[in-house]
Amino acid sequence: DFFIPREVIEKTKETMEALQKRNAAIQPSLAIIQAGEDDSLLEMNTKLARRIGLKVTQVCLEKECSEDEIVKEVLKLNEDPGVHGLYLHLPPASTTSRVLTALKPEKDVEGCSSLSIIHSIWLLFLLQSPVLLFIQKNVVHSCTRWLQERQYQPWNLSSINLQPQTPVPSDIEISRAQTPKPVDQLAKEIGLLPEELEVYGRSKAKVRLSLLDRLQNQPDGKYVLVAGITPTPLGEGKSTVTIGLVQALSAHLKLNSFACLRQPSQGPTFGVKGGAAGGGYAQVIPMEEFNLHLTGDIHAITAANNLVAAAIDARILHESTQSDKALYNRLVPSVNGVRRFSPIQISRLRRLGMDKTDPASLTPQEINAFVRLDLDPSRITWHRVVDTNDRFLRKITVGQASTEKGQSRETGFDIAVASEIMAILALADGLEDMKTRLARMVVGTSRGGQPVTAEDLGVSGALAVLMKDAIKPTLMQTLEGTPVFVHAGPFANIAHGNSSVLADKLALKLVGQDGFVVTEAGFGADIGMEKFFNIKCRASGLQPNVVVLVATVRALKMHGGGPNVSAGTPLPREYIDENLDLVAGGCRSNLRKQIQIARLFGVPVVVAVNVFKTDTQAELDLVCQIAKECGASDAVPCHHWAQGGRGCIELAHAVNAAATRSNNFQFLYNLQLPLVDKIRAIAQQVYGADDIELSPDAKAKIDYYNQQGHGSLPICMAKTHLSLSHMPEKKGAPTGFILPIRDVRASVGAGFIYPLVGTMSTMPGLPTRPCFYDIDLDPVTEEISGLF
Amino acid sequence: DFFIPREVIEKTKETMEALQKRNAAIQPSLAIIQAGEDDSLLEMNTKLARRIGLKVTQVCLEKECSEDEIVKEVLKLNEDPGVHGLYLHLPPASTTSRVLTALKPEKDVEGCSSLSIIHSIWLLFLLQSPVLLFIQKNVVHSCTRWLQERQYQPWNLSSINLQPQTPVPSDIEISRAQTPKPVDQLAKEIGLLPEELEVYGRSKAKVRLSLLDRLQNQPDGKYVLVAGITPTPLGEGKSTVTIGLVQALSAHLKLNSFACLRQPSQGPTFGVKGGAAGGGYAQVIPMEEFNLHLTGDIHAITAANNLVAAAIDARILHESTQSDKALYNRLVPSVNGVRRFSPIQISRLRRLGMDKTDPASLTPQEINAFVRLDLDPSRITWHRVVDTNDRFLRKITVGQASTEKGQSRETGFDIAVASEIMAILALADGLEDMKTRLARMVVGTSRGGQPVTAEDLGVSGALAVLMKDAIKPTLMQTLEGTPVFVHAGPFANIAHGNSSVLADKLALKLVGQDGFVVTEAGFGADIGMEKFFNIKCRASGLQPNVVVLVATVRALKMHGGGPNVSAGTPLPREYIDENLDLVAGGCRSNLRKQIQIARLFGVPVVVAVNVFKTDTQAELDLVCQIAKECGASDAVPCHHWAQGGRGCIELAHAVNAAATRSNNFQFLYNLQLPLVDKIRAIAQQVYGADDIELSPDAKAKIDYYNQQGHGSLPICMAKTHLSLSHMPEKKGAPTGFILPIRDVRASVGAGFIYPLVGTMSTMPGLPTRPCFYDIDLDPVTEEISGLF
Repeated sequence: DFFIPREVIEKTKETMEALQKRNAAIQPSLAIIQAGEDDSLLEMNTKLARRIGLKVTQVCLEKECSEDEIVKEVLKLNEDPGVHGLYLHLPPASTTSRVLTALKPEKDVEGCSSLSIIHSIWLLFLLQSPVLLFIQKNVVHSCTRWLQERQYQPWNLSSINLQPQTPVPSDIEISRAQTPKPVDQLAKEIGLLPEELEVYGRSKAKVRLSLLDRLQNQPDGKYVLVAGITPTPLGEGKSTVTIGLVQALSAHLKLNSFACLRQPSQGPTFGVKGGAAGGGYAQVIPMEEFNLHLTGDIHAITAANNLVAAAIDARILHESTQSDKALYNRLVPSVNGVRRFSPIQISRLRRLGMDKTDPASLTPQEINAFVRLDLDPSRITWHRVVDTNDRFLRKITVGQASTEKGQSRETGFDIAVASEIMAILALADGLEDMKTRLARMVVGTSRGGQPVTAEDLGVSGALAVLMKDAIKPTLMQTLEGTPVFVHAGPFANIAHGNSSVLADKLALKLVGQDGFVVTEAGFGADIGMEKFFNIKCRASGLQPNVVVLVATVRALKMHGGGPNVSAGTPLPREYIDENLDLVAGGCRSNLRKQIQIARLFGVPVVVAVNVFKTDTQAELDLVCQIAKECGASDAVPCHHWAQGGRGCIELAHAVNAAATRSNNFQFLYNLQLPLVDKIRAIAQQVYGADDIELSPDAKAKIDYYNQQGHGSLPICMAKTHLSLSHMPEKKGAPTGFILPIRDVRASVGAGFIYPLVGTMSTMPGLPTRPCFYDIDLDPVTEEISGLF
Repeated sequence: DFFIPREVIEKTKETMEALQKRNAAIQPSLAIIQAGEDDSLLEMNTKLARRIGLKVTQVCLEKECSEDEIVKEVLKLNEDPGVHGLYLHLPPASTTSRVLTALKPEKDVEGCSSLSIIHSIWLLFLLQSPVLLFIQKNVVHSCTRWLQERQYQPWNLSSINLQPQTPVPSDIEISRAQTPKPVDQLAKEIGLLPEELEVYGRSKAKVRLSLLDRLQNQPDGKYVLVAGITPTPLGEGKSTVTIGLVQALSAHLKLNSFACLRQPSQGPTFGVKGGAAGGGYAQVIPMEEFNLHLTGDIHAITAANNLVAAAIDARILHESTQSDKALYNRLVPSVNGVRRFSPIQISRLRRLGMDKTDPASLTPQEINAFVRLDLDPSRITWHRVVDTNDRFLRKITVGQASTEKGQSRETGFDIAVASEIMAILALADGLEDMKTRLARMVVGTSRGGQPVTAEDLGVSGALAVLMKDAIKPTLMQTLEGTPVFVHAGPFANIAHGNSSVLADKLALKLVGQDGFVVTEAGFGADIGMEKFFNIKCRASGLQPNVVVLVATVRALKMHGGGPNVSAGTPLPREYIDENLDLVAGGCRSNLRKQIQIARLFGVPVVVAVNVFKTDTQAELDLVCQIAKECGASDAVPCHHWAQGGRGCIELAHAVNAAATRSNNFQFLYNLQLPLVDKIRAIAQQVYGADDIELSPDAKAKIDYYNQQGHGSLPICMAKTHLSLSHMPEKKGAPTGFILPIRDVRASVGAGFIYPLVGTMSTMPGLPTRPCFYDIDLDPVTEEISGLF
C-alpha cells in the first residue's frame, strides 16, 4: 500500500527482529523532534518507521521555539541509550547548521550532520524509498553498536602500585597514603556502563541491578568462600585474607577478581573492635568511608525497622481506644466521597480469606477481623534497632508518657545489623523478592495465636521504598585498585553472617568465566561456612568452587592446649615462642575438623596461614604439612598484612589450581526433612555432637512453626563461635556432648528458623574507654585520625 | 651563584609573588616525574625551580618502569589542579612520543608535547637559562589560567520547560513527569568547579565548603526570607512560595537565584503531614529523593546523637562499678609500655584546671576529678533520637537488663531533627566551628552541680567524624531546573527552625551580586522570622534585604473571626464563599502585626498571597490593598502551585524592586542585656504581650545559666505557632496578656537559651492510618507511588 516495495519493508523488519532476538531488552527506537503541528509528511514517516518495527517517540516543541531549545533536545537524545536514531522534522528556518552539527553522526538517520545539507534539500528525497533504507540502515547500525556495548567487556584494570613500609604504619595511615582511583574510572575498567552506576562522592558508587539482565547470558566466574578455623577472641584475619587474595589475583596474577564484603556496623567502629575494612596492606579504601556511613544502607535498614516498630505500638494504642467502626472509618476513609481499600489492605483481606474490594460490602464480623490485628503485647518479637553499642537499650519499657494511655510494655533495641531487614537484604535476589520478604516478616502474634506481618500493619510498601537504594551493592576498591563490593552485613549469631547474594551475583558476571569472586563467612567455618552453604547458596542457587580456610599459629596453639587468650591482656609466652607440639595439637583437632566440614559439602579446601611476625618457619611448615595430610588441596602461608597482594601470590596460585579440581557441591540436609532432623544433622555432622536436646519451649515452638507452614525453612544456628561445641571453653574438636536447644525462633521474612543454643547478645556495649577517645577530625585538612 | 643572571631569577620570583597576592590559596607548583636515581641535572633543576618560588613535588618511578606507568602518572598530574607545570626527567628510552603526547600542552613546561622533540634534543638546552625562562613562563601561564578558572563565573543556566496541566496532578506525578538535569550539569551551569562537587546518584550532590575560600572576594547576592502570617493547622504554603519565587526569578526573569531549604524529617513523610519538597508546580525534584534519605545528613545526626547517649549511660555504669584507680587505668591505659592522655582528655584536664600532660603526675584527688564525671542520673538532659514518629518512645525506662546492674532510669527519645546536633549543623559556619560547638554541648549535670559536656565524655572527636559530610549542603533543583540547597532542618519549636547558615553563605556567593538567595523560616513570622534575625543572622553576620510574608485568604478569614479550621474535617462555608469582612478583619489584625514585626527589624516586606481556587478577585484585591496600607512595600497574588514560576512573576518583580530599597537591618535586642530582658523584649515587641511571668523553675534556671556564663546567649522561644500569644485559640493579634515562662533550657552547643512557654512535643505520633498505607514501590519500574 506504500510506494516502497514490500520486500524492502519485509527485509527491514526481519533485520530488526533478528536484533531483538539477540537481546530481548533491545527495542530499536527512533525519536522524532518536531516543531509545530503534525503534517502529512510527518505522519507518513512515522507510519513507515512503525511498519519496519521501530518504536517511535515524538518530542513536540512549539513552532517558534528557539535554536537553544532544539539543540538541548538533540543533545539529550544523543545521550539517551534507548534512542537509536533521531529524525528532525523542523521548519526550514529552524534547521540551522548549529542544530545539524549538534546531532551525533551515529544517530543521524538522514545523514544531515555529515552531509551538512539543509532541510530543503533532503526534503526532496524524503518521499522516496532510499530515505527509508537510510533510516533502516542507520537504526540497525545504532542498535548493533548498542548491543555491542552491552556485551561483556574484558577488564582493563590498572592496579595501583603499593609500596609497603616497614614497620607497617597504622591502618588509617596506610589507607590515606594511597589515592584511590575515581570510582567511575574503576567501574569503566571492569566493564560497567555509565548508566549502571550511581556515584556517591569520589570513591563509592552503587551498582544497578539491571546489570544482571544485561549480562544474563554471560557465564559466572569462580566462587570462593573464605572461612576460618575456630578463632581466638582476637580474630584470625579472614577479612584481610579475603582482601589480600583479590589483590594478589587481580593486581599480580592479572586474573579478574572481586571481593564481596559485609558492611560493618558503626557500633563496633566506635566501641571496642574498630572497623572492618581489613588491615595493614590488605584494606578497602578509603577505610573511613567503608567504616562510617558508606552509602547509607544500614541507616535505611534502621529507618525501615523502626517504622515497623512505631507502627506496631501506635496500632495497639489505636485499637485499644477505638470501636471497630471508628477504626474502619479511619483505616478506609472517604476521600472526596470515595471509599476504597489501598492495595496493601486488599492483600490483608485476601489473607483473611475475603475476596472483596468494596469497603461497603464487609459484614461487621469481617470488619472486626480486618481492623483488629489484636496483637498480644507480650508476644511481640519485633525489636527496635540503633547502629550504636547502646547496652542500656537491651531491655527497656516504652509507652510511659501519659499520651500513650497506660499501654506501656517491656521491649528492647538490637544493634541495627541484627534486624531481620538486614538478613533479608543479604538474601533477596531482586526488588520484587525483597518486597515479598519484607511483607511477610512476622512481628508478633495476635491474642488468637495468629502471626501478624508487616503487611498486616500496612507498612510493607513504605519499607520497600525506604530500601530501594539499599538493595544496590556499593562498589569500592582495595589498596591496589582492585574492585570490591560492600553489601549487607547480617549478624552472624542470630542470622547467617554473610554478605549479599546480589553482590555475589553481580560480581560473578563481571569477573567473567575465568575470574574469581571471593567472599567471606562470619565466625568459624562450623557456623559461617555452614550457613553460607545451607542458607545463602540455597537462596542464590550459586555453587562455590573453593573454600579458603584461614588459620593462625596463635589459634592453632590455643586449640592444641595453649593457655587462655583474651583481649586486653598480654599474650602468654607459648604464643610468642616456637612450640611445635601445641601447633600440631591444634592442626590435628580443630583444623582437621574444619577441613572435614568443608569436604562434607564436596568443596576443595585451601588452608591459608595468616602469618604473624612471631611465627617460626618450622611452625608454618608444620601447619601446611598437616593441613595437606588432613585433606586440604593445598596449604600456604600468607603475608598480605605486611606486603599486600604480593604476600598472597602463593595463595592465589593455590586457589586458582583448586578451582579447576572436580567439585561435588551438595547441601548437608534436604529442606523437606523435619526441623528437628535438620538441627540434628548440623549438630552431629558439623559440630561433632552426639545428639541434640530440645527444651520444652523449643519443642513447643517447633510444633508452632510446623503448624504455621514453616517446617521446610533452612536452619540458622545461634551458637558461640569460640568452640565447635556450645561451650566456649572447649577448644580443639570436642566430642561426646549433647547440644542443648534452649529456644527456637523464626525469621519468616528472611526465610530461616534459628534455634538458640546459648544466650545470644544482640546489642554490644561500650567499654570504659571506647575507641572514640582517639577518633578525631582535623578541621583544616579534614583528615581523620584514630580509626582502625 | 648560578649561571642564570640574578635579575632573571628576581623577576621571576616577583611574578610568582604577585600571583600569590591575587589569591592566597595559589601555590605555583611544578611536578617532576622522574625514573631511576637522582642525578646532578635533576638536582640543579629542582634547586632552580625552588629558587624562583615554585613548590616542587617529585614522583619517583623505577628505572625500568613501563610506558603505561609513566603515561598514567602524566594523566593524573594533568588533571591535578594543584600542579601548574610538569617536567619529565626520564631516560631517553622512556621519553616516547606516547608519553610526550599524553602531556597536556598547558602544563608542559618544556614544550615537549607541542614540538614533539625527543628527549635528547631538549637535553642540550636544559643547562641554559632560556629553559628556566620557559619553565617560568609556562608555570605563570598555568597559574594565571588556574586563577581565572577560580574567579566567579557568570551563570549559564538552562531552565527546564514546565507545561502545567489542569487539573493539577499529584505531587509525585508532577515530579516524575519532569526529568531533572544531571546534577553535575547544573553545578557547571552555576559556576561550581568539578572538585567542589560530590555527586550522590544522578540528582543530588554535596558541595564542598572550599567554595567559600575560592569566592571570598565575591560580593554576596540579595538575601530574601520567606516567612508567614500565623497559620491555620493546614499550613499556608511558605515552601511552595519559596520555590515558586526562585523558579520565577531564575527561569523567567533570568535573575540568578537559589532556594535554601530545610531537609525534612522522614517521620512526617510516613506519618500525617507528608513530604516537604513543595507542591503542585513549585517543587524540588526528584521529590522522593528530597523526602527520603537525601544524602544521609539526618542519619548522621541520629548516629552522632545516639553515640553521645550510649556514652552517657555506659559511663554511669562503669563509674558505678569501678574504683578511681581502675577507671584511670582503663581510661589512660598503657599501650606498649607507654601511658598517655588522648588530646580530648587533655582538653578535659585543662577545663578542670590541671595543666599536666604526664599521666603519672596526677595526684589521687586529681585522678578522682578526672575520671569521675559523676553524672546525676536525674539531671541528664540528653535524649536519644530516631527519625520516626514513634510516640511510644516519648517516655521510657532504660537499663532494665541484668547486665546494666540496676542502673535503670527514665528518659525519652525525640524526633531526630529535634537533636541539638541538628541546631548546631544549621548554625555552624565551618568544620572548626561545628567541632567546637559539638564539644561544648551539655548533656547533664554532675551531682556537684557542674555541667558535663560531650567532650568530657571523650566523644566529641567521633561526633565531628560522623558529621564531616553532613556539613556540606546538598544541591538539588526545582521543577524548572533552577538550583536549590537542602541543608539542616532544626525543629522550629525548641530550636530556631531555619536551614543552615552555610548553605545561605555558599548560595550568596554563587548567585553573584545581583542574584537572590531565598530561604524560609518555619512557623509564623513571630517565631521563625524573629529567630532568623536574632539567632541565625547573628550567627552568620548576614543581613537580609527583603522579607516575603506569605498569607492565604483562608488564614486571614480565620484571624478575622472565621470558625475553627482543623485537619481532617471539611472546611466551613466561610472559607469557600466570598467574605470580605472576615478577610479585612484578618488583614487588619494578624497580617498588620506580622508586617510590623518585620519592619521592627528594618527590613522591607512584600506580602505574597498564596492563591487558592476558592479565592475571589475581590478578596485578593482587598488583601493586597490593606497589606500596602499596613506598610508592605508591595503585595501580590501568587499562582505558583498551579502554574509554577510563571505564576510567581509578579512576586519576583516585587521582590526585585524591594531589594533595591533602603534597608536598616537591626537586631531586636543587645546580647549583653540580662536574659529576662531579652525574653521580655520578644514577648512585648514581637508577640504583643503586656509582660512576662517566670515560674520559680524558670527563675532558678536563669540564675544557673547566668552563673555558668551563658547570660549573653540569644533567646530561642518555644511557643505555639498557632497564635501570636501562648494561647493557640487566640487568633488575630491578641493583646493584654502576660506570657508565662514555664521553664528555661539551654542548648549550649548550638548557642541559645530556650524558654518554654507551653508544653512542646518533641516526638510526633502516628495516626490510625498513617500515610504509609498508600506508599508503594513498583518492583519493575522502581517507581514510587503515594508520596505527597
